[in-house]
Amino acid sequence: MPVPDLHTIMDAAERIKPFIHRTPVMSSAGINKLLGTEIIFKCENLQKAGAFKSRGACNAVFSLDAEQMSKGVGTHSSGNHAQALSRAASLRNIDAYIVMPETSPQVKVNGVRGYGGRITFCKPTLKAREDALKEIINSTGALEIHPYNDYRIIAGQATAALELIEEAGEPDIIMVPVGGGGLLSGTALITKYISRNSMVIAAEPEMANDAFRSFHEGRFIPSENPKTIADGLLTSLGSLTFPIITEYVDDIVTVSEEGIISAMRLIWERMKILIEPSSAVPLAAIMENKLDVKDKRIGIILSGGNIDLDRLPWLTHS
Amino acid sequence: MPVPDLHTIMDAAERIKPFIHRTPVMSSAGINKLLGTEIIFKCENLQKAGAFKSRGACNAVFSLDAEQMSKGVGTHSSGNHAQALSRAASLRNIDAYIVMPETSPQVKVNGVRGYGGRITFCKPTLKAREDALKEIINSTGALEIHPYNDYRIIAGQATAALELIEEAGEPDIIMVPVGGGGLLSGTALITKYISRNSMVIAAEPEMANDAFRSFHEGRFIPSENPKTIADGLLTSLGSLTFPIITEYVDDIVTVSEEGIISAMRLIWERMKILIEPSSAVPLAAIMENKLDVKDKRIGIILSGGNIDLDRLPWLTHS
Repeated sequence: MPVPDLHTIMDAAERIKPFIHRTPVMSSAGINKLLGTEIIFKCENLQKAGAFKSRGACNAVFSLDAEQMSKGVGTHSSGNHAQALSRAASLRNIDAYIVMPETSPQVKVNGVRGYGGRITFCKPTLKAREDALKEIINSTGALEIHPYNDYRIIAGQATAALELIEEAGEPDIIMVPVGGGGLLSGTALITKYISRNSMVIAAEPEMANDAFRSFHEGRFIPSENPKTIADGLLTSLGSLTFPIITEYVDDIVTVSEEGIISAMRLIWERMKILIEPSSAVPLAAIMENKLDVKDKRIGIILSGGNIDLDRLPWLTHS
Repeated sequence: MPVPDLHTIMDAAERIKPFIHRTPVMSSAGINKLLGTEIIFKCENLQKAGAFKSRGACNAVFSLDAEQMSKGVGTHSSGNHAQALSRAASLRNIDAYIVMPETSPQVKVNGVRGYGGRITFCKPTLKAREDALKEIINSTGALEIHPYNDYRIIAGQATAALELIEEAGEPDIIMVPVGGGGLLSGTALITKYISRNSMVIAAEPEMANDAFRSFHEGRFIPSENPKTIADGLLTSLGSLTFPIITEYVDDIVTVSEEGIISAMRLIWERMKILIEPSSAVPLAAIMENKLDVKDKRIGIILSGGNIDLDRLPWLTHS
C-alpha cells in the first residue's frame, strides 16, 4: 500500500462520514487578542469518542472485507485510539481486543468498556504493549489496527485538516500535537495536496521529545521514559509516519509542562470547551514563542477531550 | 412598553445578530441513551461573554438613542448580565457601571473588568444591590438596565429559543433554568408565538425555589436566603417576568444540589463542554425524574459557562 494520495484521503472522508461528527471550527476573540494572532481551532475534542482517533479507526474498520472482519480487531493504545477502535468495531458488530497500559486514565478505560472493547492491561512500555497484543492476536486471529503506523489510519486522521481547510480557507500555519505521528502525517499530506502554501508545524512536550529529536537529527530516535502530562503523546514515531514527517513537515517545536497546563486552562476558560493536555500543546508553543505567529492565520487541531475530571492538572500538578 | 410580541423579538434578533454568536445546538448519543430520551442542547455557554445574557444586554444597549446613551448604563448582577452589559457597552463606547455582590465568583469579576465595566461591590442581598445602584445612578445619570425585569432584555433572551426552534424544529418540551425569569419569559413568549405545541418547563434549585412557589401558589414570593451552587439563579422573579411566566409557562420543577452537580458533570464528561451549575438545572430535573420525558424531544438551553476552574463543585462541595 502506498503513501495515501489525495484520492485515498477523499475516499476515507466519504467512508467515515456517516460515523463521525463534522466537528465545529471555533475562534476566541479573547485568545486572539491576547496572543496577537488569529487562531482557528478544529474541535476534535467534540468528535465521537472524544478525539480525532475516531476518524482513522472508522476508516480502517470500514475498509475491512468480510473475511478480515470475522475475527475482530486488536490494538494497543494509551487511550483514545482504544476507545475509537472499540466504537468503530461495535458499529460493525465485531470484537475489539484492546491492550492498554495500566497507567491509562480511568476515564479512557471506562470509555473503552462503554464501547464494548475487551481490555488487557500491561506495563506502560512499548515492548509490554506489543508483546501483550501479539499474544492476543495469536490466540484469537484478530487483525491488528495499529494506532498510527498504518496508512488507513493516517488517511483517516488526514480528514480533520481537510475539513479545517475546507471550512476556514488556507491558513498560514497548521499546527497539531505529535505523539506517534498519525495525525501529523495525515495533516502534512492533505496540506501538501490542497493547501500548498500552508506550513505544517508540530508541537511536542519537551518531556517526550522523540519526534523533535528524530526530525532535527534526521534519524529515528525512540521515546524513552517520557514523563509528560500529555498522556496521548507518549509514543514514538513509526516506520510509516517518520518518513512522511521528514518529507512534508516544516518544523517540530517543544513546550514545557507548565506551558501545556497554561494553554489548556486558557482554552477551557475562554472557549468553554474541555480539552485534554495533549490538545493544548500547539497553543502552548505559541504562548511560549516557539514560532513566529504575528499577523498569521493559524489552524490548530484540538486533538481530544478525554480527561479525568477528578484530576485537573492545575489542581494536582506540582 | 407592552409585552414583546413576535415582531419585537424578530427585531431584537436582527439588532443583535452582528454582536453575538449563533451558538451551536448539540446532542449526545450517550446522554440520550442513558436517559431514554432525545435532548437537543442550545449551547449558550459558548455565547459571547459566556452566557445567553449577551443577547438581552446587546438588545437593550443597541436600542438606546444617542441621548440615552450619553451617560452610560448601570446594573446590578450576580455576574453574567454584568459581563454581558459591560461588553455591550464597550461595543458602543459607553460606560457600564456594575454593582456586584461581594460573593461573586472571581471569574465573573475578572470578566467584567476585562470588558471595561466599572465595578462597585455590595452585600449579597437584593436590597444592598438596589441601594448601591441607585446611588451610582443618582451621581452619574447612567441608565439602569435591569438584568431581567426589562422588556428589551426579555426580547433579547427570547432569541436563544428562537434559534433553537429554527434549527431543531419544534421540540415536545423546551426547558430552561429560572432565576429572575428573563430567559424563561423570553423563551415562553417565543415558544407561544412559533412553536405552540411545545411545552415550556422551567427548572429551579430546591434551595432557591421562589419561582416554583410563586408559580404554584399564584402569588409573588421573593427569594429569601437562597443557598444554591447555581449562583446565577439566586434572584427573585420580577414584576414583568412573573405575569408572563404565570400565563405562558407550563410547569416549574425543582432539583437537589446533588442533582445539579451530577448533571453538570455528565455534560462536561459526555459533551466536552464547560457549563456553569445554573446551566445543569434542567438536565438535573430530567435525571431526577421530575417530568415525563419518555420518547420526547426536549430542547434545553445551556445558559452559561462561566465557572471558577479552581473550585469545581465535585471537588469542593460537601
